[in-house]
Amino acid sequence: MPAYSPRLTRLIEALRRLPGVGPKSAQRMAFHLLDRDRSGATQLARVLGEALDGIGRCPRCRMFQEDDACGYCTPAREAGGLLCVVESPADLLAIDATAGYRGRYFVLMGKLSPIDRIGPAELGLDVLTRELDSGAVQELIIALNPSVEGEATAYYLAELARVRGIAVSRIAQGVPMGGELESIDGGTISQALMGRRPA
Amino acid sequence: MPAYSPRLTRLIEALRRLPGVGPKSAQRMAFHLLDRDRSGATQLARVLGEALDGIGRCPRCRMFQEDDACGYCTPAREAGGLLCVVESPADLLAIDATAGYRGRYFVLMGKLSPIDRIGPAELGLDVLTRELDSGAVQELIIALNPSVEGEATAYYLAELARVRGIAVSRIAQGVPMGGELESIDGGTISQALMGRRPA
Repeated sequence: MPAYSPRLTRLIEALRRLPGVGPKSAQRMAFHLLDRDRSGATQLARVLGEALDGIGRCPRCRMFQEDDACGYCTPAREAGGLLCVVESPADLLAIDATAGYRGRYFVLMGKLSPIDRIGPAELGLDVLTRELDSGAVQELIIALNPSVEGEATAYYLAELARVRGIAVSRIAQGVPMGGELESIDGGTISQALMGRRPA
Repeated sequence: MPAYSPRLTRLIEALRRLPGVGPKSAQRMAFHLLDRDRSGATQLARVLGEALDGIGRCPRCRMFQEDDACGYCTPAREAGGLLCVVESPADLLAIDATAGYRGRYFVLMGKLSPIDRIGPAELGLDVLTRELDSGAVQELIIALNPSVEGEATAYYLAELARVRGIAVSRIAQGVPMGGELESIDGGTISQALMGRRPA
């Protein structure tokens, strides 16, 4: 990259650390912030600082948390004995928005991926193991996205529960609502056939 | 979007103001910064502040500038009487890196685009007009990227120079170095033919 001035270079480099942002995008973002949206840049700097200071993680479910008490680790939610494992905060919110589930969650913040050096420790599985050992969990619901790493992670999690005699389930894989068979991939159709239920 | 906590929501909204960042990307960026790269987030907040405080624009060429004196508006560069108009700081650096040009520049920071409400004022054409009126410019070199808006802007700029009796030129359009005719678009080949020169 040609030589920009020091501050501009540092800004472009900092923006490159964002996921999915390459050198060209980082440059475009820096120009945009400096040229067309300085108020946006001021705001971004401020809310970044606020977020770093104010957003922590619940020590039990690992969800992002601002207040002292986690809204997802309440006694009412714990009472059911259900613990649903998800990959990300977005997945947690997607499930919680359906109102079809009111148990507790455990957010992995990723999935097992040796290539990216993400192992059990990075996913907080020591915390999950303590939860499973506490006796409060009657069923572990695995709600990971279907992918190679997701399957491997699901297998690992299922073993953690099985050796402790805790029931394990996975959310159903199959044809989505409104999906048309002719335009759905073969893997999904196979899963839908294997998961068939008496009508 | 489901309801995140207030600080997280504000962070995601601030990231969405970056060009090319939609709701999903902003969410992924926020999670990444909070979960995996808090030092990157701290750094981004700091360098954003530094950039806003320290990076200004040269009042003559509109290039980003940190020091009091613009490195591209030196008397040595002015002496040649050449002024090269480019769209962006990146284009300026690309041209300057070739060492084939050592005159002054004028950075539009965009191109005329009525749909995006970018008119002559947004591109600083009043500043350019003052430069042209000063008598120091003998040739205006238009180095805009070939596009519909680029052509319209080039036409507008050429008129500004012509009415003042200043020579105007445009950088050559044609087959790039290493380009193969069979894989180059028809528009470029047409331009290359029209711009043919005696061998």
